[in-house]
Amino acid sequence: MTHPLRLGIAGLGTVGVGVLRIIRQQAKLLSARTGRDITVSAVSARNKSKDRGVPLSGYAWEDDPVALATRDDVDVFVELMGGSDGPAKAATEAALKAGKDVVTANKALLAMHGQELAELAEANGRVIRYEAAVAGGIPIIKSLTEGLAANEITRVMGVMNGSCNYILTRMQSTGLTYEQVFDEANGLGYLEADPELDVGGIDAGHKLAILSSIAFGTRVDFAGVELEGIGRIQIEDIRQAADMGYRIKLLGVAQMTGRGLEQRMSPCLVPEHSPLGQLEGGTNMVVVEGHAVGQIVLRGAGAGEGPTASAVMGDVCDIARGIRLPVFGQPADTLVAAKPAVSATPAPYYLRMGLDDRPGALAKVTAALGDAGVSIHRMRQYDHENGNAPVLIVTHKTTRADLCSALDKLNALPVVIEPPVALRIESV
Amino acid sequence: MTHPLRLGIAGLGTVGVGVLRIIRQQAKLLSARTGRDITVSAVSARNKSKDRGVPLSGYAWEDDPVALATRDDVDVFVELMGGSDGPAKAATEAALKAGKDVVTANKALLAMHGQELAELAEANGRVIRYEAAVAGGIPIIKSLTEGLAANEITRVMGVMNGSCNYILTRMQSTGLTYEQVFDEANGLGYLEADPELDVGGIDAGHKLAILSSIAFGTRVDFAGVELEGIGRIQIEDIRQAADMGYRIKLLGVAQMTGRGLEQRMSPCLVPEHSPLGQLEGGTNMVVVEGHAVGQIVLRGAGAGEGPTASAVMGDVCDIARGIRLPVFGQPADTLVAAKPAVSATPAPYYLRMGLDDRPGALAKVTAALGDAGVSIHRMRQYDHENGNAPVLIVTHKTTRADLCSALDKLNALPVVIEPPVALRIESV
Repeated sequence: MTHPLRLGIAGLGTVGVGVLRIIRQQAKLLSARTGRDITVSAVSARNKSKDRGVPLSGYAWEDDPVALATRDDVDVFVELMGGSDGPAKAATEAALKAGKDVVTANKALLAMHGQELAELAEANGRVIRYEAAVAGGIPIIKSLTEGLAANEITRVMGVMNGSCNYILTRMQSTGLTYEQVFDEANGLGYLEADPELDVGGIDAGHKLAILSSIAFGTRVDFAGVELEGIGRIQIEDIRQAADMGYRIKLLGVAQMTGRGLEQRMSPCLVPEHSPLGQLEGGTNMVVVEGHAVGQIVLRGAGAGEGPTASAVMGDVCDIARGIRLPVFGQPADTLVAAKPAVSATPAPYYLRMGLDDRPGALAKVTAALGDAGVSIHRMRQYDHENGNAPVLIVTHKTTRADLCSALDKLNALPVVIEPPVALRIESV
Repeated sequence: MTHPLRLGIAGLGTVGVGVLRIIRQQAKLLSARTGRDITVSAVSARNKSKDRGVPLSGYAWEDDPVALATRDDVDVFVELMGGSDGPAKAATEAALKAGKDVVTANKALLAMHGQELAELAEANGRVIRYEAAVAGGIPIIKSLTEGLAANEITRVMGVMNGSCNYILTRMQSTGLTYEQVFDEANGLGYLEADPELDVGGIDAGHKLAILSSIAFGTRVDFAGVELEGIGRIQIEDIRQAADMGYRIKLLGVAQMTGRGLEQRMSPCLVPEHSPLGQLEGGTNMVVVEGHAVGQIVLRGAGAGEGPTASAVMGDVCDIARGIRLPVFGQPADTLVAAKPAVSATPAPYYLRMGLDDRPGALAKVTAALGDAGVSIHRMRQYDHENGNAPVLIVTHKTTRADLCSALDKLNALPVVIEPPVALRIESV
């Protein structure tokens, strides 16, 4: 057996504690599988005295994560602090420059600074591993980078924010409003300190940007992700979508088109009987489509102590076993800057709006759509009170440009008294 | 860039041709991702003159796969001939002894001779890779061996024979009998030359034995798999199961119990709304449960040119990238001989039988079950003709031993005129 692999762990929240638990409880299993002992030299966190339920007395303590990252007795810096800048970035850079490999769960850091960190890692002959940054315990980074490496990837999709999926499926099952379920989820601690990271799609968008880079050999480009959160989704939309055989999901989609790289994170309708449609609660799902393999679906817990620690330690095991790859699967200097293509692929859309209930209102709506080149596949006007007549339209496939033009025209109509909600219907 | 990785491919059926296609069409992608060119030095198959739709003129031809496997210009021997013995085994051994790595899609070879081949590979410092041997394009070997390496695996389950799942779901959707759908599937070329390999559960059992070895650190033990095929399943069982909210699947289950390693491949009832219950047609699904990660589900095409070639080439890419692990994830001499435990875990069972339609028949059945210590959860007797009264029973959780004792008693009853079909209800 070669010498032990020695970790320095910065950040002792849920995930950090989970990592310590695995190392303490599964030491024999880990060394059987990797051929090495995996040990912890030192830890760092904001509060030294807090009782975390695992003994820390066997590990050196560092107040400063940069000091931790550069210790002589650390081979791998495990970054579990979070945040795209500040200490997480500083300590990661310091670790790489000091010749340490890095394992991180930090999606924001990689989505914002992935390219420069990949270059820094390669310049120092080090690796950065981040399975835990995307979809928790699901081994999607490994599957995409290694298992499916012989595929030209045609599309990557996923439900990668468990909190949003919890909110949407809970609205569906209880009939509660978005606001009610949001408050409930927040009270249960399901949302980030800044909930907009979850419900605004930012957290999931970070994950999508990372997957895009691996899938398409492009520089990670979070700014190129078309982002839309779930805050506009009303219980009425959930109900109407269900009635037509759909579910609403905060869905990430990345695909390379003739016009560039399309990256979207937005609420979409998906068929209720598809694997994505059937995904309930906080579970995550990633769908990869490759030219040879067809469609591969991976499903599992997207967060939580055990699943996230499993992913972190999977990366640690790889390093212990000598598995070393470029950060995004190919050398950083071969990753190309993709041209962002905003919703390049046409799709059918779901539209819901409220009309002033008087003769000719519907005719004005259909005329506006026709003028914009958007044709109607299904339409329904249903029971209402107080003069606001709800109308539901499913369009034929249309481009985003034509759709936007239609929405502009609809918003300009005096008969449209509740502005249209437009949701893409994704073919999965 | 380092020197090219040179393959010798034995077997040019569907998968072999798929591998050649990927190498020819994705050369640029493969070298971008692996940092090396991947080339083919030589090929071998039974019939040199057959038109396979891909040009072979650029490759040397060998009639003898052993000669191919040991050529100086071959770094990796790709074994796509199949068969647990004969040329596949001889050529694999020759390749390892000649210092070649091996990539194979041959589940039978590994299930029958995995341990000795792993020892031979390690003695020669070589690797054997076999992602394509289990569940086609799904990267399950990699996920289990690497991504989930930090988990104590508690259970591995899967639907891993697409032909059986096709037959069972087609019976469900059409109402046709097993014999009718079997003939249809056979006519379409969906079944092996010896269909018993599929419908008898042997092929899927091979796959389960391989997964068990990785999951539990045991020597691959196909003889320890409790095998039962789908040939007994009648359309009546499909209907009755559906009526109670279940689907029938040829399900493999492996788990380490207090009494030993339980490996079963048998038709089971699973809830219709579970991911396994919803799996239609020829698709495969593998479910891995780990102490930290919880439940991970992987789904994709289990066979076919593209998916299987994707898995073969994923392994080739790993070798090109220098990823090298012991064959079953840990050194062969550390794998332990597991004690087989036949159906150690209790479960509820579905029982269907035909009774002579006269007073007291049902009382005799319930008494026989009670005598065997099997208690009844649900029972139903339904419409019938010709004096054969169909009775359906769902038991409470019972051990396999008690169930067998109950079945013996039932078979000995003169009122039981159609012997009971017993299917385990698996909690998924």
